[in-house]
Amino acid sequence: MIKFHVVNGEILPAEQASLNITDLGLLRGYGIFDYFQMKNGKPFFMDDHLRRFYRSAEKMQLDVGYDFEALKEQIYRLIEANGTDTCGIRLVLTGGYAIDGFTPVSSNLVILQHPFKVWDEKIFTEGINLITHEYVRSMPEVKTTNYYTVILLIPEMKAADALDVLYYNSDGWISETSRSNFFIIDEEGKLITAVDKILHGITRGHTLAVAKDILPIEERNIHLSELKTASEAFVTSTTKGIVPVVKVGSDIIGNGKPGPLTQKLMEALRLRRE
Amino acid sequence: MIKFHVVNGEILPAEQASLNITDLGLLRGYGIFDYFQMKNGKPFFMDDHLRRFYRSAEKMQLDVGYDFEALKEQIYRLIEANGTDTCGIRLVLTGGYAIDGFTPVSSNLVILQHPFKVWDEKIFTEGINLITHEYVRSMPEVKTTNYYTVILLIPEMKAADALDVLYYNSDGWISETSRSNFFIIDEEGKLITAVDKILHGITRGHTLAVAKDILPIEERNIHLSELKTASEAFVTSTTKGIVPVVKVGSDIIGNGKPGPLTQKLMEALRLRRE
Repeated sequence: MIKFHVVNGEILPAEQASLNITDLGLLRGYGIFDYFQMKNGKPFFMDDHLRRFYRSAEKMQLDVGYDFEALKEQIYRLIEANGTDTCGIRLVLTGGYAIDGFTPVSSNLVILQHPFKVWDEKIFTEGINLITHEYVRSMPEVKTTNYYTVILLIPEMKAADALDVLYYNSDGWISETSRSNFFIIDEEGKLITAVDKILHGITRGHTLAVAKDILPIEERNIHLSELKTASEAFVTSTTKGIVPVVKVGSDIIGNGKPGPLTQKLMEALRLRRE
Repeated sequence: MIKFHVVNGEILPAEQASLNITDLGLLRGYGIFDYFQMKNGKPFFMDDHLRRFYRSAEKMQLDVGYDFEALKEQIYRLIEANGTDTCGIRLVLTGGYAIDGFTPVSSNLVILQHPFKVWDEKIFTEGINLITHEYVRSMPEVKTTNYYTVILLIPEMKAADALDVLYYNSDGWISETSRSNFFIIDEEGKLITAVDKILHGITRGHTLAVAKDILPIEERNIHLSELKTASEAFVTSTTKGIVPVVKVGSDIIGNGKPGPLTQKLMEALRLRRE
């Protein structure tokens, strides 16, 4: 049970953890975040996530207000207060309390602790479906709080029994899903994933690192038309690791079951993470 | 001096007017808003703004939670509490306190009262500059809280002594500025403004209504190349009404001074508003 969060350095009871309504994250969607998980006190790639958080902040001209070690200390104090070290940690940084409702001032930093996300084992053994949607994020390399496009698609995802939405541009080139990176394995057994105009997922990076010893890799854009001939597909994300994708829109991937190379990568990543 | 705001129907001292940090407007930028002004108790086109607020809510699958009259009553109670009826009123509606940090639940509605925005008279008598930026809003017809693109351009605007940024797509077609609609008057004295993929500004609509008796109107997209030959240009917005534009990027509009037809429209709109 999560009882506390942190607001601007102060540990507060969850129900009192709030920001004034003049906050620019609320009024103007001017905010960034990052998220990582911890299991029995062992964080998954925490330093990678924190480094990306600082990079996102810099690109949005926001000041985290604490150095790397001071930020870590806040996270550990929060975990101690909550008395549970199997959890998710979300950091959110906004443009602060804007007097004019527009111009960023001194940032607000909040740290939320969440329960550890446990996914139904079926998504790993049977794979998931994705829907597709034409959409280009305006600052894909920054982890902003801008997610209304996918949230509006929740009903469509439910109807298609899909777990996420795969974004493509007006020419049919795939970038990523709303909350994960997307990979295919082609007929020759080559791993392919986009490298430009995407959020560089921490799990994406570690997946490529373990993949090096398993199969050839090509980092380039994937076209929607390639889904018809791909033999395997999967997504990578912080909370899920690698998840096989068996259907995208109306295209069945391969034989509609998680592929053998994907399973090999899942096992390799699991060893690296835990 | 503004002392109070409204949070979910409750009038609260400004410094206590807050939302819990699990709010989806903060965590995921999932929110809409609207804004109107009032002078000596006379609101400028309040009903138009409130109707648009309900339309935005519907398109974002959000429930305002109050009917039109109940919402108005809250606004008037707030104005009474603050003791000043010359002001700006901002309504913000979000996806609520999301347990999973993602899925909208019962909405949060906040109403902020702001001081009446008084602009330097020079922007009306001398006109303003705009910078340009390639950007396509993903749901232009909905007044979402998504403004980080323009906020990141504040330094560039300052450097160019510009008041706003004019968005155009990859083919050079102009949509609107970040916070107003954009019009040109061509060499033949015809008024032209975009009609598709824009936010339909309340002031835009009233400007077109008064323009009918003054000059011919064409509602169609404007290309960046037309700026070189336009004889006049202006923007329309809630807080400013009509403001002449004398420079866009490096293009001087007409003779670099507010044009006579623009001034005629400004006067006609002023009569309609006040």
